[in-house]
Amino acid sequence: MKALLWHGAKDIRIEDVNEPEIAPGMVIIEVAWCGICGSDLHEYLKGPITIPVSNPHPLTGQVAPVIMGHEFSGKVVEIGDGVTNVAVGDRVVVDPILYCGTCASCKKGYHNLCVKLGFHGITANGGGFSEYTMVPFHMVHKLPSQISLEEGALVEPASVAIHAVRQSSLKLGDTCAVFGAGPIGLLVIQAAKAAGANNIIAVEVSESRLQKAAEVGATHFINPKKENTLAMIRQITGNNGVDVSFEVSGVESALLEAVQSAKAGGETVIVSLWENSVSFHPNLLVLSERKLLSSAAFRHIMPETISLIASGKMNVKPIITKQITLDQIVEEGFETLAHDKSHAKIIVTPRN
Amino acid sequence: MKALLWHGAKDIRIEDVNEPEIAPGMVIIEVAWCGICGSDLHEYLKGPITIPVSNPHPLTGQVAPVIMGHEFSGKVVEIGDGVTNVAVGDRVVVDPILYCGTCASCKKGYHNLCVKLGFHGITANGGGFSEYTMVPFHMVHKLPSQISLEEGALVEPASVAIHAVRQSSLKLGDTCAVFGAGPIGLLVIQAAKAAGANNIIAVEVSESRLQKAAEVGATHFINPKKENTLAMIRQITGNNGVDVSFEVSGVESALLEAVQSAKAGGETVIVSLWENSVSFHPNLLVLSERKLLSSAAFRHIMPETISLIASGKMNVKPIITKQITLDQIVEEGFETLAHDKSHAKIIVTPRN
Repeated sequence: MKALLWHGAKDIRIEDVNEPEIAPGMVIIEVAWCGICGSDLHEYLKGPITIPVSNPHPLTGQVAPVIMGHEFSGKVVEIGDGVTNVAVGDRVVVDPILYCGTCASCKKGYHNLCVKLGFHGITANGGGFSEYTMVPFHMVHKLPSQISLEEGALVEPASVAIHAVRQSSLKLGDTCAVFGAGPIGLLVIQAAKAAGANNIIAVEVSESRLQKAAEVGATHFINPKKENTLAMIRQITGNNGVDVSFEVSGVESALLEAVQSAKAGGETVIVSLWENSVSFHPNLLVLSERKLLSSAAFRHIMPETISLIASGKMNVKPIITKQITLDQIVEEGFETLAHDKSHAKIIVTPRN
Repeated sequence: MKALLWHGAKDIRIEDVNEPEIAPGMVIIEVAWCGICGSDLHEYLKGPITIPVSNPHPLTGQVAPVIMGHEFSGKVVEIGDGVTNVAVGDRVVVDPILYCGTCASCKKGYHNLCVKLGFHGITANGGGFSEYTMVPFHMVHKLPSQISLEEGALVEPASVAIHAVRQSSLKLGDTCAVFGAGPIGLLVIQAAKAAGANNIIAVEVSESRLQKAAEVGATHFINPKKENTLAMIRQITGNNGVDVSFEVSGVESALLEAVQSAKAGGETVIVSLWENSVSFHPNLLVLSERKLLSSAAFRHIMPETISLIASGKMNVKPIITKQITLDQIVEEGFETLAHDKSHAKIIVTPRN
């Protein structure tokens, strides 16, 4: 079967690999759609970041090349002995997080903080940019009929956004700011809206992404290239600052402004992953008792994400800006995302 | 009367100033003991930091020179019309925080985050390094007979430490680390112990301060000049990290280690004030969903601090390492603290 393998930075190849063979407790999925994640792009441009190369992954034993893709939907085509939660023909999505189950974090239910954390599609022997892929039954969640397979590919990133909002103390009626309106930022805007935020301020340098932010529920818009972000936020909030800011850009200036945009006693949730250190004055926190929180992937939330999408409380469809085939993934996928910031989520089908 | 006035960095002078004259709602206190705070030392060495010089303070209208000293005890010698909470002869301490009462923070009860925040003894027309001082009645709290006037001078910094612990989510049985065992760090150790911490790891470069940390309740001791702090903490905590770390040193390397010493999902409370920015990698938070919290002075806690000291749950006496008179304050007080890190709290009496 065809699959996309990461060999190195700027070296990803569509190759013929063996189809998975069913085993007890496992589920084989015919992939319908798989999204390109920001972390996939990082691995493509500057990897290896989390892909194991010289040392086998502590949980999976995997080394590169690895099959990429962890945001996918598909249909169950085969189930192993003992699998009862899904049946052949079911439309499903996959929670890609791999964990040991025995470390201190896992034992407390924080498996997204597992000391041996892995991802199907990054550090495992299989992924969603592939005609078929096989995962343990407990990672598979059924899609209800209201959710298309295209939308299904957004269940994983939507879970990241919902977890980020749940990590915050955002309350009904609050005002928040979202710094960065890429796919996760746009989903954070949706999640904040669904959580009852009154005002949602989108801060983003791309005008087309600001338009997208308006489409998904942001109420105020700031382009830091044209406006003074902190002055605008002071004006919007009657000089008080926002209750919660979400940093979803991975850019130092945005992080510093996200912190300063929070009210006294308010908080900033960092959702981005970072390539470099930042220069940060701790008094930005201390003098105003601000908090700096963080969010890593998600836990225990995919079924709820599916319900929120099915009921229309989250509308992931506008996040999809392009649909391509696996053969097009390098030029029309990765290279497009690297150079054209007007795109949000590009989803890929291995079926031509 | 004699008082210590700040004129500039390294320029503090004992001068004769007018005694305060009683007014309605005010209380005049004959100062018994006043502690030298870390912030006083900063103003002495590198000020002005918060002392108003060119622009009058927005709340008090004060400009330098100012009478210093905000950690003090004394006896009430005169009360103005309408004062009913204290009487002449009462032994008292003072909550030095000045606030507007009308900004968004004040209206929500967070007056320590007031936009016009001030301190009696830093930004006001009076302070504790003075024979007498006058404050509004609501800032005055009576000392019970179990607390000496010397210990009374520690009620203010003990409130800072108790507030820092209350800002954290430290729970009975938790393990915490305290980075920096100066006066506030030592009081944080006591407060963490009183709050039920199982293990309290003191991290401090001064051996004499580590000994003091043992005296007040720390259970483990690390000198970063001699040992690998993070390796030691991993060993003490069975590879997990601490539940809460407190950063009370104002030193970049300590802040970075405090963050990294926290378990996945754990937290660091910054209690220090900072002179400079730090270089900080946000992934230290994000990959482990750690939190960075902060604590500024205190609010609504001085009566409880007094009770905790009176009942023996907090024992502030060992924090006092030297008692001097006002005439000695420059050489035996400020210069000693600047050069001899074996000292914790030096308290000063204006009575010879």
